[in-house]
Amino acid sequence: MKTPDMSERRLEPWELLERRELGDFRIFRLAETRRRSAADGREHSFYLLDTPDWINIIALTSSGEILLIEQYRNGTDQITLEIPGGMVDAGEDAEEAARRELEEETGYRAEQLIDIGWVEPNPAFLNNRCTTFLALGCRPEGETNFDPAEDIVLKLRPMEDFTRLIDAGEIRHALVLAAHDHLQRGIAVGAEWADLLP
Amino acid sequence: MKTPDMSERRLEPWELLERRELGDFRIFRLAETRRRSAADGREHSFYLLDTPDWINIIALTSSGEILLIEQYRNGTDQITLEIPGGMVDAGEDAEEAARRELEEETGYRAEQLIDIGWVEPNPAFLNNRCTTFLALGCRPEGETNFDPAEDIVLKLRPMEDFTRLIDAGEIRHALVLAAHDHLQRGIAVGAEWADLLP
Repeated sequence: MKTPDMSERRLEPWELLERRELGDFRIFRLAETRRRSAADGREHSFYLLDTPDWINIIALTSSGEILLIEQYRNGTDQITLEIPGGMVDAGEDAEEAARRELEEETGYRAEQLIDIGWVEPNPAFLNNRCTTFLALGCRPEGETNFDPAEDIVLKLRPMEDFTRLIDAGEIRHALVLAAHDHLQRGIAVGAEWADLLP
Repeated sequence: MKTPDMSERRLEPWELLERRELGDFRIFRLAETRRRSAADGREHSFYLLDTPDWINIIALTSSGEILLIEQYRNGTDQITLEIPGGMVDAGEDAEEAARRELEEETGYRAEQLIDIGWVEPNPAFLNNRCTTFLALGCRPEGETNFDPAEDIVLKLRPMEDFTRLIDAGEIRHALVLAAHDHLQRGIAVGAEWADLLP
């Protein structure tokens, strides 16, 4: 019987031997890498999606509503309910992207944007981060500007419904659950921003 | 000023006009679809990763430890700390995949596996689900069987550390945060399985 490796062995990143670009697909570039294990020298090839960073936004009005968006998603071929979000464009930082995507997708602007945590969407084959912002004091003072493939309906809901909609399976996007997890853990440990919630 | 669409307009999936297969990359197949908006007839092309379903596992021993795995991840080119998980193979259901991956990656077998929720990893361009299982009564009675590209070190930690390791940024995988969110929301609403936790 092979026993699991419970050692204090320290893993090392695999050495990059070769990288081959396979194409640019607008929202990611596909590459194949050949790498050698630092532990035992074996070689393996991996596929990699080279992706811009992403952001998403828990956007709240001062009267305690959360901004949700319904949209058509090509991956699952379904209408989804999500929080606003998108890609960080070249030359932007994550907060600028959050400010822009919030206005483009909802027409709302925030008084304050707070970074509440980031995740790796899938470290197995994506190389990017997704940062969640809490947007406070949101007001409909901007202009929507949808991407050509976007078709969005804005829904305002009491912010307590955020958890309930996930419990009910009406929100299914993993990155929205990660954002919800940042929010709940932040509240639980008394993060600085928790006192600012409406 | 364009105002956001706050109507009760019902979104419809976009009609599929054409689908072109661009290649098989082992962990996904890449395709391009051309679709027409049901709302206004405009056409757009989308890239799609056709992916098997995934599972991950919150695996606990009866003495209240959680099984975590350290491994090298090609996407981020980093060593990550995660819960066990993987792809559902052809002919398997999600629970069979969870049982198999748990044993292959850790050498542990569970007395009981409970489905505690699923997410869409990214409905924008992935078409799959990731289901989280709670594995109870785990014991080191199986055999590890790593994939050729896997290099895994098992870490047992007190289960209370699961939240703390996410808070500390030592766990960053979005699907692990989604799993943590399923666990915490289930405990909060008194899910049937919550009484079975060690």
